[in-house]
Amino acid sequence: MMKIEAIETAYYRLPLEPMGDAGHGAIDSEEIITVKVRAGGVEGHGYAYTIGRGGRAVHALLEHDLAPLLAGRDATDIEALWQLMWQRLLYVGRGGLAAFAIAAIDIALWDLRGLRDKKPLYVLLGARAKEIRAYGSGVDLPKPLDGLLKQTEGFLARGLPGVKVKIGKADPRDDETRVAAVRKLIGDEVDLMLDANMAWSAQEALERARRLEEFNLYWYEEPTIPEDVAGHARLVRELSVPIAVGESLHSPHEFQRYVDERAAAVVQIDPVTNGGITASLRALDMANAAGLKASSHYTDELSAHLLCAAANAVYLEKHAFALDRYLEEPQRVVKGRVRPTETPGTGMRFAEGALAPYRIL
Amino acid sequence: MMKIEAIETAYYRLPLEPMGDAGHGAIDSEEIITVKVRAGGVEGHGYAYTIGRGGRAVHALLEHDLAPLLAGRDATDIEALWQLMWQRLLYVGRGGLAAFAIAAIDIALWDLRGLRDKKPLYVLLGARAKEIRAYGSGVDLPKPLDGLLKQTEGFLARGLPGVKVKIGKADPRDDETRVAAVRKLIGDEVDLMLDANMAWSAQEALERARRLEEFNLYWYEEPTIPEDVAGHARLVRELSVPIAVGESLHSPHEFQRYVDERAAAVVQIDPVTNGGITASLRALDMANAAGLKASSHYTDELSAHLLCAAANAVYLEKHAFALDRYLEEPQRVVKGRVRPTETPGTGMRFAEGALAPYRIL
Repeated sequence: MMKIEAIETAYYRLPLEPMGDAGHGAIDSEEIITVKVRAGGVEGHGYAYTIGRGGRAVHALLEHDLAPLLAGRDATDIEALWQLMWQRLLYVGRGGLAAFAIAAIDIALWDLRGLRDKKPLYVLLGARAKEIRAYGSGVDLPKPLDGLLKQTEGFLARGLPGVKVKIGKADPRDDETRVAAVRKLIGDEVDLMLDANMAWSAQEALERARRLEEFNLYWYEEPTIPEDVAGHARLVRELSVPIAVGESLHSPHEFQRYVDERAAAVVQIDPVTNGGITASLRALDMANAAGLKASSHYTDELSAHLLCAAANAVYLEKHAFALDRYLEEPQRVVKGRVRPTETPGTGMRFAEGALAPYRIL
Repeated sequence: MMKIEAIETAYYRLPLEPMGDAGHGAIDSEEIITVKVRAGGVEGHGYAYTIGRGGRAVHALLEHDLAPLLAGRDATDIEALWQLMWQRLLYVGRGGLAAFAIAAIDIALWDLRGLRDKKPLYVLLGARAKEIRAYGSGVDLPKPLDGLLKQTEGFLARGLPGVKVKIGKADPRDDETRVAAVRKLIGDEVDLMLDANMAWSAQEALERARRLEEFNLYWYEEPTIPEDVAGHARLVRELSVPIAVGESLHSPHEFQRYVDERAAAVVQIDPVTNGGITASLRALDMANAAGLKASSHYTDELSAHLLCAAANAVYLEKHAFALDRYLEEPQRVVKGRVRPTETPGTGMRFAEGALAPYRIL
């Protein structure tokens, strides 16, 4: 028993260099909502992020709905608390914003468990530390070609063995030109992923992919909307390039559909958007049982632990919204690979001084 | 073109007599989030409600994400604004709380259109006014049997031709006792609906229903979780009582699955939880095309209009959270039936003086 004594939340808006993709449009800021859960003399840290929308609502859920619900309860019973939060927000939840708020608390609870047991997160998950290849990932659909190539050169200079390019231009030839130029720049030894951010119908996504398959693609991400599971399954059957999804799946139920209907080849976890470490672990369990590959979306620091629990972790995403400048210990990439941290808990701590100028609530 | 000049929001917490159900537990308050959209010299009114959780997050979405997005846009292009809001909240949305916030604005936009055209909502929907039977609906799982019967007597005294009872007691015999007593009280001429609020697995729901079918049930509502569409489809196939769902479906996509997989016999719209009048209309279109029955959840005043657009509207729910005391013109029930209002727009106006003591934001 470690009684929850206090839960503190804060809300920050961080400026981003303007970027964008086919599904979410222009993005110029990121919201960070932090949570500190104090129990038994230790303080676990968690967080959620957004792409600039909905963050105040996440903060409101934490402050007014979840924090009062959890006060005085046993912080060590993470699974039960996850169910309690899911149930409490059921009427307004079942995914969406509720997943982000539940995630922020759930991450703090796992951190707390690690601090108490003096073990890093990956050990709590029953895994051993693994080196995981990292790929460079831009949010670069609006970038002109020279900017895209310059970004790609940056990924290569960091020694990353894979790069991802956004697609979804109105004219298919524009996507082809960009993908061809990136493939030419990186050569045959570097893996190339494409991300359509739900730009198309399944039929359009199929036609678009046919024109791009010649570039030897590592995966084809979010080709159509998450609701069209049958469409994804069709793409899995008809294309040689593996289909990747996960960042838009906000509950274990959503992952279950994709696994049951054989609608994905690569399961991409994101412990914030999935509804917490607890939810992402369930997605990994499903991926492991079904023999699927695993990767991550954003959440670089947490995912380095979580992917250690995957049977077949192919890549960790080094995302364009790097939090490095706001972290006490930014994740290190060595020879294009990352490892989980060895300190107790998640090992992820925001540098309060760096975040402070952006605090709003 | 009617340029949106201002959007005003407010947040209220209304006390409720303590009640509860199998899925959402104890409920002792309702949140109301109101929206007023001003354009072209008129002011459309919309709202969202919750069962006491998440309302501040809905308010935050409206205030910080949707109101700034809509300022200056054409209020008459409701479909385009619905898509714009859906897209804007896509990353944190696809249902859940985003649906509630989009709904509040969407309802105000339909009201505004009615005020401009000087037509009641049902006329805007291309429908003619219909009389719709109303049923009495309690949120009464914790009520002792005598309280349940007293409530039922109240429904009969109001001349309602149908009554709904919550089920989901731990011991199936308790549900049987309660349902038997209500059936005995109401006689054979009054319709009896049951609502399990997602209490069980599909298998349990099947076994529970087998024990209750003898009471000549009108429908069996939310027998299992909304994510288990295949489970609902199985219940549709294996039970003689019609399966009803809708209040927990937060997007047209979710309704589509139920209709495509023949997983419901009665489609229950709720223009707040479904994501607006625009979203509920799509659900009704699907129900009409598939030959399904239509009913409503809560939202008594709006649903009297919407159900006029249903090909086979069987019942309107008179919900336990009656807003009557907070409305300028409470809905009238005559001989167990309701009609849509004839004034321009939705005809629904909160009585500001009655709400004011409960305003928080």
